[in-house]
Amino acid sequence: MAIRIGIIGYGNLAKGVESEIRKNPDMELCGIFTRRDPATVTTKTPGVPVYNAEKIPEMKDDFDCMIICGGSATDLPKMTKEYAKYFNVIDSFDTHANIPEHFAAVNESATAANKVAVISCGWDPGMFSLNRLYANAILTDGEDYTFWGKGVSQGHSDAIRRVPGVKNGKQYTIPIKEALDAVRSGSAPELTARDKHLRECFVVAEEGADLARIEKEICEMPNYFADYNTIVHFIDEETFAKEHSKINHGGFVIRTGRTGFDNENKHVIEYSLKLDSNPEFTASVLIAYARAAVRLEQKGDFGCKTVFDIAPALLSPLSGDELRAHLL
Amino acid sequence: MAIRIGIIGYGNLAKGVESEIRKNPDMELCGIFTRRDPATVTTKTPGVPVYNAEKIPEMKDDFDCMIICGGSATDLPKMTKEYAKYFNVIDSFDTHANIPEHFAAVNESATAANKVAVISCGWDPGMFSLNRLYANAILTDGEDYTFWGKGVSQGHSDAIRRVPGVKNGKQYTIPIKEALDAVRSGSAPELTARDKHLRECFVVAEEGADLARIEKEICEMPNYFADYNTIVHFIDEETFAKEHSKINHGGFVIRTGRTGFDNENKHVIEYSLKLDSNPEFTASVLIAYARAAVRLEQKGDFGCKTVFDIAPALLSPLSGDELRAHLL
Repeated sequence: MAIRIGIIGYGNLAKGVESEIRKNPDMELCGIFTRRDPATVTTKTPGVPVYNAEKIPEMKDDFDCMIICGGSATDLPKMTKEYAKYFNVIDSFDTHANIPEHFAAVNESATAANKVAVISCGWDPGMFSLNRLYANAILTDGEDYTFWGKGVSQGHSDAIRRVPGVKNGKQYTIPIKEALDAVRSGSAPELTARDKHLRECFVVAEEGADLARIEKEICEMPNYFADYNTIVHFIDEETFAKEHSKINHGGFVIRTGRTGFDNENKHVIEYSLKLDSNPEFTASVLIAYARAAVRLEQKGDFGCKTVFDIAPALLSPLSGDELRAHLL
Repeated sequence: MAIRIGIIGYGNLAKGVESEIRKNPDMELCGIFTRRDPATVTTKTPGVPVYNAEKIPEMKDDFDCMIICGGSATDLPKMTKEYAKYFNVIDSFDTHANIPEHFAAVNESATAANKVAVISCGWDPGMFSLNRLYANAILTDGEDYTFWGKGVSQGHSDAIRRVPGVKNGKQYTIPIKEALDAVRSGSAPELTARDKHLRECFVVAEEGADLARIEKEICEMPNYFADYNTIVHFIDEETFAKEHSKINHGGFVIRTGRTGFDNENKHVIEYSLKLDSNPEFTASVLIAYARAAVRLEQKGDFGCKTVFDIAPALLSPLSGDELRAHLL
């Protein structure tokens, strides 16, 4: 029987889950839950029912795993611990500093309910975290580097759009090639925020707005831009719509280290992603971990988990024999 | 108490384990086992006893994990299943086609003895396999590519040295940049062996040998060279000793794939290694998995495992709390 998946939310990430689940024959999308009036939501998948989120608890026997597609700021801290009382759940909680607190809260409700909850799943946190862990366990004497981009930062784009006089805006985080090359050489450079990333902004200004003032406000914005070299381009609405509609992203996790009795040998481990669609890729990771969550529940291994706690074989639809014969 | 590690064998890989274990404060090297007369073996680590391999069974309570550093052709198929009767064991068995058979034999003895055996550990099989598995589970609609090099192939170097008139030889496998670039573009090219790798050989010939004949024999050697473009350089012994003493290696695992309702978005996942010392890096992987093997035994999860079956957190000396706080 196919694994019965539900989606909570219907934004970009949820639509990514809806699209990618079709490529997993062992899974079935059995429902989408929204806080809106279900009658106003038109899904892309014929025949999949849309329910109001209020119905979630009463459908606890109808889904094997819920993929919770909410925001990390306010949605997930409430939703994941609540829905783990009824279902195996997966989320993409990505406020790194608050992960320990989120883990503790979700672990409590999942454990009490004999369910499995996988939090902070996706690519960072997620696949990037995994690569940091593997590389650290192998090269114990070394240093870590994470670069992001080239890609759209939602947080920085939001920050631009809050500047008075800005009608629309998008920010691309761009890793600086010289810094990447220095890291890859194994020379273990110390790099500042400014050394590692450039921030490039495309801004549609309101008519008559003071462009010099907008540029200055963006470039001097604390936390978001002040510590970086920032380039601001003013473009018209049509160009914005035509050239900046994709939600591409990616990045690099690199660990360099040394081995040998005299530390005479250098090593570089590098993992990189180049993604045309951040939400669809993140959704693909969530789907693979939904399969793992269901298997963990079947084994009686309940509670909150992260990518660190889950054996890789549990992600794959293939059997152990098939994996050893074809992928090892 | 530190994890008590033993090394079986004392070749390049074993010396890598000896060197790298010093960087893991939770582990201790408690003995080296050799088929030679122990009196003839001088280790680099003061105070570590050297035993004859015959003593292995009688020391079954003195080690938490044995790292078996033997060859895949004849040593490991016998040794791993034998020593799994007495200890948790790790090997780097790398004859891909025979992994299922090796797994079954080792699983039988490890399970019967309530021990944990991790086979085929290292970077390929090992970290490369893991990356193939993760990438396949995420991008279900896509294609896999593995490139090796630039690095020394032991098998091809051995093959060169068997050609009459060859005194010494070393073969470097070199990934072809155009093929790598085509793969990274996401264009999903179909590539032959010749498209992907170049084989560069450095040969010291015996005095008076027919160089043209040697070159022809190398380039036309079936399985090893005939399907590739091969370059042969003849050099003198001194140059060989000076410039070709390192055992460097590395490579790339790439999966490209598509997402979206119309498969309109492309993605590239790439993992790469650049290693100055193949045996020391492989040893570092074995050591991390030795830690995992001991923990699996403590949990009562006995039998034969591969990197696919082992949750990443088990490799790290850090606690779950520490990992979530610092690496997730």
